[in-house]
Amino acid sequence: MQDLYPSRCAPTAEVRQRLDPVFHGVWNKDAPISLEQARQFDEQGYLVIEDLFSGDEIEQLQDETHKLLSDPSALDPYTIITEPDGNEVRSIFRIHAQSRRIARLVADERLAGIARFLLADDVYVHQSRLNYKPGFRGKEFYWHSDFETWHVEDGMPRMRALSMSVLLTPNTPNNGPLMLMPGSHRKYVTCVGETPDNHYLTSLKKQEYGVPDEDILASLAREHGIVAPLGEAGTVVIFDCNTMHGSNGNITPLPRSNAFFVYNAVSNRLVEPFGGKEPRPTFIATREVETLRADENLPMEAEI
Amino acid sequence: MQDLYPSRCAPTAEVRQRLDPVFHGVWNKDAPISLEQARQFDEQGYLVIEDLFSGDEIEQLQDETHKLLSDPSALDPYTIITEPDGNEVRSIFRIHAQSRRIARLVADERLAGIARFLLADDVYVHQSRLNYKPGFRGKEFYWHSDFETWHVEDGMPRMRALSMSVLLTPNTPNNGPLMLMPGSHRKYVTCVGETPDNHYLTSLKKQEYGVPDEDILASLAREHGIVAPLGEAGTVVIFDCNTMHGSNGNITPLPRSNAFFVYNAVSNRLVEPFGGKEPRPTFIATREVETLRADENLPMEAEI
Repeated sequence: MQDLYPSRCAPTAEVRQRLDPVFHGVWNKDAPISLEQARQFDEQGYLVIEDLFSGDEIEQLQDETHKLLSDPSALDPYTIITEPDGNEVRSIFRIHAQSRRIARLVADERLAGIARFLLADDVYVHQSRLNYKPGFRGKEFYWHSDFETWHVEDGMPRMRALSMSVLLTPNTPNNGPLMLMPGSHRKYVTCVGETPDNHYLTSLKKQEYGVPDEDILASLAREHGIVAPLGEAGTVVIFDCNTMHGSNGNITPLPRSNAFFVYNAVSNRLVEPFGGKEPRPTFIATREVETLRADENLPMEAEI
Repeated sequence: MQDLYPSRCAPTAEVRQRLDPVFHGVWNKDAPISLEQARQFDEQGYLVIEDLFSGDEIEQLQDETHKLLSDPSALDPYTIITEPDGNEVRSIFRIHAQSRRIARLVADERLAGIARFLLADDVYVHQSRLNYKPGFRGKEFYWHSDFETWHVEDGMPRMRALSMSVLLTPNTPNNGPLMLMPGSHRKYVTCVGETPDNHYLTSLKKQEYGVPDEDILASLAREHGIVAPLGEAGTVVIFDCNTMHGSNGNITPLPRSNAFFVYNAVSNRLVEPFGGKEPRPTFIATREVETLRADENLPMEAEI
């Protein structure tokens, strides 16, 4: 398959044009979001939705998170990523396969339905995780486009995927909230440096390849600015697979956690990684397509 | 001299009452700040003042900063503090003794006059520095009360000192601005752990002693909240010597720099350090009182 988005193969970084749509469909009155929201996602590369979930549902998700974080021994050990300089849990991957409640959340039509609509295709879960940034010593996530890594290391052919972050704690201005560069998703920023073997073993803690050039980041920030959507627990932040994003560390006492889901269009299923290395393990990048069906929706509340 | 604020000598951290006033004087109509501003400082432990300086003055200070940062070889090498894991300059101490422009700024009646008024005494410069938090990889400053360190390591007897940060770049919500806990200055949070010899050699990069307890910080944050004053270059943030403060790291492309001055009341001059160790070097804590006189004010603009 032709590599439409080559990266990590030239000696200098480049800014290229995106070759794919952002909103892949056409708005209609049955859409799960308003025309304005669809336009905002298309133009800015992100969208914030509040009040999708009831207070009860959010509480149950918080309980579930607490349970999962407090007993890591019940989880597949390789899915647990700790802080670079400690043992504190930073992310738990493939969380929808390890928690029935999260499995129902990822398939919930309020989330999956929006993904299906924006990508104008059936969708499946490319990646899921629970992110936890502890208070006092939460570390930063440096700027990156997810798509660059998914393309080079996982073999995602086109830009037809998006991420949803369901906040499980409030995003305040000071606890290291997700920052995005609105509009950056329309450029493709290539990176330099060949990817080492088994890069994922370190990159999930601290990425050193697939890191955008500082001059390009500075120019993107000047052109597009930086936003950090704030919100209460339950707020959903949706962003395109190619939106430049990152987050600062967190010395406040308030931890930050979210359930993080990547929906990919089934027509955009993974092929061989474009970087020419072995694909990353399936707990980071699902290689089998299991389409999320609206008619299989189960209520989140019920302990079935 | 009796130690009114013992710290780093008990096995557990404590929250004690402050024994000194915050605003040491009485407001009158000739005061350099309004009654409201004096009250805000007294109650909240900080105050933000905009438009103290002209655009020209701010530009000249920025030029001066750029000059000082770009040629560290012209400075006393021991006054230059680099980032914990690199060579990038984080702070330059005793900056008022190394730059005529900064010497005029620290003595400027618009700053020193406010310090004299709030402390109700003549003042001198206990410490001065230029802080620089680079873009992309600026590191955090963890929570601390300055007074705790100045008392234990420098021998500052009472709480009758304050800091002024003159912003030389904008403080945005995302570039790691100073965070304060308003009202925390009325408590004295003791720390545990004996101070090692020559602690300053590492503490200016990353502090490991004189670090407040996490449970106490969490409880202060719940009670007082956290504010991060934003503002353009030229904004002055004044805060009491005992206000709990810190700042997050900064992955945005925007660097952050400020000129940072500590004014101490001459009646509060340093004695032997209460921690019983050798005093820190004078470039960190002036031991000779040179009173700043209003009648010696020179215009900042003139290159005299």
